[in-house]
Amino acid sequence: MAATAVSQYYLSFHSIPEDGGTWRRRTGSSVCCTPPVAPIPSSSPPPVVGPELSLSFRAHVIPHPKKVEKGGEDAFFISSYNGGVVAVADGVSGWAEQNVNPALFSRELMSKASSLVEDEEVSYNPRTLIQKAHAATSSVGSATVIIAMLEKNGTLKIASVGDCGLRVIRKGQVVFSTSPQEHYFDCPYQLSSEAVGQTYLDATVSSVELVKGDTLVIGSDGLFDNVFDHEIVSAVGTTSDDVTNTGIG
Amino acid sequence: MAATAVSQYYLSFHSIPEDGGTWRRRTGSSVCCTPPVAPIPSSSPPPVVGPELSLSFRAHVIPHPKKVEKGGEDAFFISSYNGGVVAVADGVSGWAEQNVNPALFSRELMSKASSLVEDEEVSYNPRTLIQKAHAATSSVGSATVIIAMLEKNGTLKIASVGDCGLRVIRKGQVVFSTSPQEHYFDCPYQLSSEAVGQTYLDATVSSVELVKGDTLVIGSDGLFDNVFDHEIVSAVGTTSDDVTNTGIG
Repeated sequence: MAATAVSQYYLSFHSIPEDGGTWRRRTGSSVCCTPPVAPIPSSSPPPVVGPELSLSFRAHVIPHPKKVEKGGEDAFFISSYNGGVVAVADGVSGWAEQNVNPALFSRELMSKASSLVEDEEVSYNPRTLIQKAHAATSSVGSATVIIAMLEKNGTLKIASVGDCGLRVIRKGQVVFSTSPQEHYFDCPYQLSSEAVGQTYLDATVSSVELVKGDTLVIGSDGLFDNVFDHEIVSAVGTTSDDVTNTGIG
Repeated sequence: MAATAVSQYYLSFHSIPEDGGTWRRRTGSSVCCTPPVAPIPSSSPPPVVGPELSLSFRAHVIPHPKKVEKGGEDAFFISSYNGGVVAVADGVSGWAEQNVNPALFSRELMSKASSLVEDEEVSYNPRTLIQKAHAATSSVGSATVIIAMLEKNGTLKIASVGDCGLRVIRKGQVVFSTSPQEHYFDCPYQLSSEAVGQTYLDATVSSVELVKGDTLVIGSDGLFDNVFDHEIVSAVGTTSDDVTNTGIG
C-alpha cells in the first residue's frame, strides 16, 4: 500500500485553564487528558493517486472545575479509518436542572457515531454520520457536535451543529476556522432527545484542503470561548515541535 | 431546463465608510457602487438532480478616499456561469512607491480570470482559475485574491491567497468565514509579477454547502478590517429585505 507520504498532521483537543478562572459560560465543556498519538495504519482502503494523508492524534480533555467529579460533559472519539476521523460533542448543562446528567447524551452520541464511521450508508459523509448517530441515541439530553473526516487526498470534510469548533493551523497561522451557530447568547444549536432541537439538516457543512504539516485543533466552546486563536497557535507550535522532536508522525 | 428552484442568494460586495475615518491599513481596498442584480440564466449546463441553486449579485465598491480619483486598487468580476462565480482582487498599494499603479495588476488578474471561467482546463476549480489567471498576467504589481464558484448542487468552492474574505450569512448569523493569510501585520500573501510572491499553491482551498436564502459577502480586507461581522450581518439583513421586497431573486 502507498503510505509513504503519510502526513505530519497533529490534532489537539481543547485544553482550558485548570483553575477555571477565565470561564465565561454556563454550559458544559471539556476536560480530561489522553495524549497518546494513534498509530497510522499502513493499509487502508481505498488507495488514491498521489501522496496519502492521515491524521495523527492528540487529545486533551480538561473538564470545568465544577464538573470534574462527574468527568465533564464533553465527549469525543477518534478513528484512524480512511484519513482519520475526529468528533467532539458537548452536553448541554441545562439538563442538570432537570436531574439529567448532561454527559449521557453527548457520550452516547459519540459512541454511536464511532460505531457508524465505517457504515456504508454513512458513505464517509460527516452530516450523514450526525444524522444516523443522532437517530441511534436513546438518552435524554442534548449536545452540540462537530465531526471532521479526512479523505486521504487531503480533503477534510466537516459538519457541525452548534458551537463546537475547528481550526486549521498552517505555517503559524489559522487558515481555516468554523463558525458557531447559536439561537442567542449561550444557547447554541443542539441535537436533542426532544423534538424542539436541531437536526443534521441544520448542520453547517464545509471542507478544507489540508496539506502535510497542517495542525487541526478541534474542541467545544470551552476552548474557543476562553483561548484566543493566537494563543492556540502559540500552544500548537510548541506541541508540534515536541512531537517532531520525538520523531512521531 | 430545471430552473424552478433557483436560490434566493444575494451577494454583497464590501462597503466601507466613505469618510475613511476608520481606515487602519495601508494597502488598497474597496469603494464604488454598482448595485444591479445580475439576471439568473434560465439555462445552464449541466442539469443536476434536485433543486438547482444560483447566485444573485449585488456589488458595491467604495475606494479609499485617497484612491478615489484613480478608481481604487480593487477589482472584481461576477459571472452567472454554472451556479455563479464571483472574485475579488486587491492591488497591493506598496507598488505606488515604485511609480506602478497598484490597480493594474488586480484589474488584469480579474480580467484574465473572468475570461477563463469556462475554460475546460480550469474545470470549474477556483485554485486552477487562480493559477491560470495569474500565469496570463503581464502587468507589474501584486494582489490578494479570492474566487468563489457555486456548483448548482449548492457547493460553494473557494480559493484565496491573502486577506480578501468571504462570509456566509444564514438566518441572521455568520455560519462560514474564510481566514486571512499574511506574512506579518499588513503584509498579506499575494500573487505577484515577481518571483518572490505566492502562487496558487499557497491558496487556502475550502468549500461550504449553501442553502436557499444564504447571503454571501465577499470583499477585500478593506471591508473586514473596518466592519465587524455583526455589522455586516445587520447591513445584509436590510439589503436582503430590500431585494425580497422588489421580488428579485
